[in-house]
Amino acid sequence: MPKTAVILCAGYGTRMGGKVKPLMKVGGREIIYRTIKLLRDNGVERFIVIVNRENRKPIEEFLKSLNIEYEVVVNPNPERGNGYTFYLAKDRVYGRFVLVMGDHVYCEDFVKEALKGEGLICDRNPRFVDLDEATKVIVENGRAKRVGKKLERFCCVDTGFFVLTPEIFGVAENIVESKEVVSLSEIMEKARVKVTFVDGLFWMDVDTEEELRKANRFVVRCSYKGKGDGFVSRYLNRRISLRISEILVNRITPNQATIISFLVGILSSLLNFVSIPLAGVIYQISSILDGIDGEIARASLRTSNFGGWLDSVLDRYVDFLFLLTLSFVSKLNDLEWVVACFAIFGSLMVSYTTERYRGAFFRDFYQDFDFKFPGKRDERIFLIFLFCLFSFLGKFVIVYLLILIALVTNLRVLATILVVCRRYLLLKNS
Amino acid sequence: MPKTAVILCAGYGTRMGGKVKPLMKVGGREIIYRTIKLLRDNGVERFIVIVNRENRKPIEEFLKSLNIEYEVVVNPNPERGNGYTFYLAKDRVYGRFVLVMGDHVYCEDFVKEALKGEGLICDRNPRFVDLDEATKVIVENGRAKRVGKKLERFCCVDTGFFVLTPEIFGVAENIVESKEVVSLSEIMEKARVKVTFVDGLFWMDVDTEEELRKANRFVVRCSYKGKGDGFVSRYLNRRISLRISEILVNRITPNQATIISFLVGILSSLLNFVSIPLAGVIYQISSILDGIDGEIARASLRTSNFGGWLDSVLDRYVDFLFLLTLSFVSKLNDLEWVVACFAIFGSLMVSYTTERYRGAFFRDFYQDFDFKFPGKRDERIFLIFLFCLFSFLGKFVIVYLLILIALVTNLRVLATILVVCRRYLLLKNS
Repeated sequence: MPKTAVILCAGYGTRMGGKVKPLMKVGGREIIYRTIKLLRDNGVERFIVIVNRENRKPIEEFLKSLNIEYEVVVNPNPERGNGYTFYLAKDRVYGRFVLVMGDHVYCEDFVKEALKGEGLICDRNPRFVDLDEATKVIVENGRAKRVGKKLERFCCVDTGFFVLTPEIFGVAENIVESKEVVSLSEIMEKARVKVTFVDGLFWMDVDTEEELRKANRFVVRCSYKGKGDGFVSRYLNRRISLRISEILVNRITPNQATIISFLVGILSSLLNFVSIPLAGVIYQISSILDGIDGEIARASLRTSNFGGWLDSVLDRYVDFLFLLTLSFVSKLNDLEWVVACFAIFGSLMVSYTTERYRGAFFRDFYQDFDFKFPGKRDERIFLIFLFCLFSFLGKFVIVYLLILIALVTNLRVLATILVVCRRYLLLKNS
Repeated sequence: MPKTAVILCAGYGTRMGGKVKPLMKVGGREIIYRTIKLLRDNGVERFIVIVNRENRKPIEEFLKSLNIEYEVVVNPNPERGNGYTFYLAKDRVYGRFVLVMGDHVYCEDFVKEALKGEGLICDRNPRFVDLDEATKVIVENGRAKRVGKKLERFCCVDTGFFVLTPEIFGVAENIVESKEVVSLSEIMEKARVKVTFVDGLFWMDVDTEEELRKANRFVVRCSYKGKGDGFVSRYLNRRISLRISEILVNRITPNQATIISFLVGILSSLLNFVSIPLAGVIYQISSILDGIDGEIARASLRTSNFGGWLDSVLDRYVDFLFLLTLSFVSKLNDLEWVVACFAIFGSLMVSYTTERYRGAFFRDFYQDFDFKFPGKRDERIFLIFLFCLFSFLGKFVIVYLLILIALVTNLRVLATILVVCRRYLLLKNS
């Protein structure tokens, strides 16, 4: 795997009103931070950053704040083109290296795949970029035959991500010595570099404010994987929470989002003393907000074990307090309290059994089992929300709700125990 | 690390009435199984087992039932001594190898340490063997000077565990060719093998029925580490459960023990309808029994992720049902039910927070934190047991108990959240 990366940041960002593009935030992080972080997580240790005279200071200061090995090279003549900018890295790389544009945004999956490739990384299914503006590539025998913006009959698009060896500088030198303005496309075309396809994953270049907003939106959306989500979450909650995350990702941290949704959850449980339907509505809203911390964390590359832990523990308190206050204001009799206890216990055990599974097997339960049984948190809360809306019909609505929650959750736990036991016994007998 | 082990099993077990010693069970497992399993877990891949004509068949059949690479060598003249038996492995080992006695029992820690050593592994603090019967060693300049049963002024004892190189067979050959009866001690003395000390860990040889019982007892006791145990468990429950495990370890599996303690726990919660003090006593007994599955699992080298998971999940049901039935028969009012719910929730959350910690950080909470706050399961159950004994004084006893459990458990959870948050914030700021 490449150990060095060359990042080109000598462009002027004219269409952005001269802002320093690599330092603009997408998904809560500077574009160059995203690229460096994803490359580092995948084995790149050294960064050669080529800047111009104007943006040198802010970029150098930003790199200083990161704990990385880097070199800054100034291009005194950015008007000579990005091919010339690239050529300035000539004597600073050894062995396989990555070349990447400082104003391109990539998702993690893209970087992982691209690093395994060779030459020019191309996308045959570019879903996120403006095709008119994109650099197209015509491929012949696995190598770049033509590279340019105005090609017809191209088969793929240049992603601005390259995995190269220092031989490329020989080709670059010839061109740089013979003409004034040199583009990367020319160098790649002359060198007939190999082409590797990485198709359909999120990446885009950011040239305008509009594209910046678009990148921000996609970074948040692409960070959502859906693994382990329940039905309500997938088809309702996420559609709303992702939109909120797009707005908040550059404004709050994941842990702040955790605390906000916790406080809204606590508020909803207290509202049971005022109005059960209102409490139900706020509870459902807290359930939607509960997705935001994870979305922001993934989008801004800030996921942490601690954040996941804290979110889970606080969720348990919210669920407990809501069912408790709902039961209390409903003036239950002894048997109904028993049902309420089963509902509270079952709700917690749904999470306990799967979390304990990860603690025991060091694997995710939902990765190991295709488990379709209802009763996940988003589904429970939506059910509670619906029943709360109809609480004006009488106490029986709440009692039925508690019976339903008690049944669904405890049956789900029983089903969990059964599937785990079955797999264990099969394993033992095989 | 050595890849091959030579196991000597050509002795006649005369003091055992001719029983095949390597196949006798200690801690629920055949002695030779224990040795092979511990060696395999630590990198040994190939086993040369030297038997006599009489025990060849049962030992060979047993080895066949294991999924290992092995060779069986028959010693036609066991009366020529264990030095001669060892010599028969001559052309079958290459590179560093382990030599170990088929009637010796070792704990896991011993095997791990011994495998890092060289030559004769000796114990300067033999706590588990009969010194009169032991083979003593006099060490000079790190090598064995004298090896024998009748030495005075010895500094350590031969553990029957050796890490050798094939050169030793040259020395053995000279002796075997010159005399009829050859002991291992003679060979080691002549070769002046290096000595490595592994002191005070459990190992012993088994020559008599009495020693077999003793080995069984120690294997169970040494498998108990105390990590994560609460106060009551350490000073009361374990003292009883270990004695029971010593008896049961050769009779039931860990999962059977889990089910038994679960059923006793469920029984105790049902007994609340008959007599609260009796229920409390049985609940405390189930708490003692709850230690047995883990003790048997560790002693019989049968620990499994599944067993740990199942035990945890079933414990949660027992705790829930006991508090629920106790609350129900106590005819609580609404506010008291709220307290009962807090007690039920808190009891479960004590476990949830630490289990979720392991799921998030892939580390044990009690390894990361020296957490002395009371409220672990053994302590809670003991408290419930005490209060139940005094339930005849009136309902207030149970209400006070519920308040106490609710407070202790929820405060413990709060303390858990605080210590984890503090460490995370410190880590972030460092």
